[in-house]
Amino acid sequence: MSLLDRVRTCQRWDPDAYRPFIVAGRPMGRVRHAFAHRLDDFPKVFEVGEAAVSLASGLTDFESRTAAVHEILLSLREAGEVPIWRDEAYPIARRWDEDPLMTMERGAVPLFGLRAFGVHLHGLTEVEGVPHIWVAKRSMSKPTAPGKLDHMVAGGQPHGLDIFDNVIKECAEEAAVPPELARQARPAGLVSYVCERPEGLRDDVCFVFDLVLPADFEPRNDDGEVEDFYLWTIEKAKSVVADSDAFKFNCALCLVDLFLRRGYVTPDDPDYHAIAHGLRLVD
Amino acid sequence: MSLLDRVRTCQRWDPDAYRPFIVAGRPMGRVRHAFAHRLDDFPKVFEVGEAAVSLASGLTDFESRTAAVHEILLSLREAGEVPIWRDEAYPIARRWDEDPLMTMERGAVPLFGLRAFGVHLHGLTEVEGVPHIWVAKRSMSKPTAPGKLDHMVAGGQPHGLDIFDNVIKECAEEAAVPPELARQARPAGLVSYVCERPEGLRDDVCFVFDLVLPADFEPRNDDGEVEDFYLWTIEKAKSVVADSDAFKFNCALCLVDLFLRRGYVTPDDPDYHAIAHGLRLVD
Repeated sequence: MSLLDRVRTCQRWDPDAYRPFIVAGRPMGRVRHAFAHRLDDFPKVFEVGEAAVSLASGLTDFESRTAAVHEILLSLREAGEVPIWRDEAYPIARRWDEDPLMTMERGAVPLFGLRAFGVHLHGLTEVEGVPHIWVAKRSMSKPTAPGKLDHMVAGGQPHGLDIFDNVIKECAEEAAVPPELARQARPAGLVSYVCERPEGLRDDVCFVFDLVLPADFEPRNDDGEVEDFYLWTIEKAKSVVADSDAFKFNCALCLVDLFLRRGYVTPDDPDYHAIAHGLRLVD
Repeated sequence: MSLLDRVRTCQRWDPDAYRPFIVAGRPMGRVRHAFAHRLDDFPKVFEVGEAAVSLASGLTDFESRTAAVHEILLSLREAGEVPIWRDEAYPIARRWDEDPLMTMERGAVPLFGLRAFGVHLHGLTEVEGVPHIWVAKRSMSKPTAPGKLDHMVAGGQPHGLDIFDNVIKECAEEAAVPPELARQARPAGLVSYVCERPEGLRDDVCFVFDLVLPADFEPRNDDGEVEDFYLWTIEKAKSVVADSDAFKFNCALCLVDLFLRRGYVTPDDPDYHAIAHGLRLVD
């Protein structure tokens, strides 16, 4: 196993299993053929064709699209066909800087292969001059990736919240980082990927942040989403990422990005080229 | 003007003006149609078709390819058709970790649109706690981009030299950085691009390094390639990159990568997505 394996995991999906999901004339996501057939039960909202599924052309604005789809998702949920329900509205857009075309319940977003955004924060510190990173163990009650290793702080990016405000909110909720400390987080780029996961097709952009913590800071979880925190050398985190799938798939990708940015992978590594070019999809 | 303009500059070329250049059955570069016609004068070495130019199939190994092409380049040079001649052998490979199929005189590489590799080093320091970067002004006698702003240290990656050894060598030649200091350079990823330049089609991978320098270090140029050095705040370098084309095109791209990695661009910048996805070509 290798760091590149973790990158490849985030690129694994079968294009033949999907057809485009079109909103306002734009390909915004991808639906499995079986799910497309199911959506054919709702012809007022979904125009299902062999080549694509489109949101009904009569739904011409943000509010009507959001409301019409939400109503159907509620009935699919009732039928047990939206197994994860978060009660969080996600913006439907290909880029964060675009005006979203609608919002959708977070749990349904992967069923439509729609792009989602998230924030991932590396909690970094030094112990006797050696760079360390805080690692979280996800609670067994998390709907996705229970028990997997995670960043100190990470979270989905809901509609209507500024990215940096979300970082500060998640810092408080997940690791009891006081706002004045959380505000020192520095953006460090993004990773992006499309891959199949148990919950559906993930087409995500993760905004990456580095936060350098004082040596005496210890994260503490208040929202029940984290079971434990560990303070590891970055070298140890690198070994675990390379040699196992103990980290949640997209956290592993953000960590590979950190290792690349901070010189823990070197150009003489035969995977360097493929790793660097695998962290972001051209879009 | 904006940082994104600098990224776009590194993506500007006209695919219709070129046909593939094939070596050992693999598309390795791209030649302009007019240059393809010229290569038709050397049918023992180049098989020129409408769809592609291939290196003659009889040239089956590294040595024979290298020697046959070199002989033709010497006669083209004689005719004034290889205006830049560096007497440096570049490896012909799509990735640094591959065994090169041949080598080629550096000055001719952009005429064949072949991939080239380089090292770009950011010389970083702090002045009273404020992050600064050393900027070089290229000598007016440089064959490419004379007088443009540059990294403290940057150079092409010749055949047969380890990347990190090249960094140390260029550090000594370009900025009189002693080897023990140069060895502290940390790899920080890469940028890649295809774009048209006066010298031809550049299809480059630049390995990026950060070197944190002591506050009392001052670069000094010994090989005549640098006219002057300036110590700027990173904010000033960012303004100059965003507002002008004073930096050599690919140095600007490496600097944009630095600004992204170190939080000088933030996710609320409407260009964030496009910048992050424009630093590396998928390949």
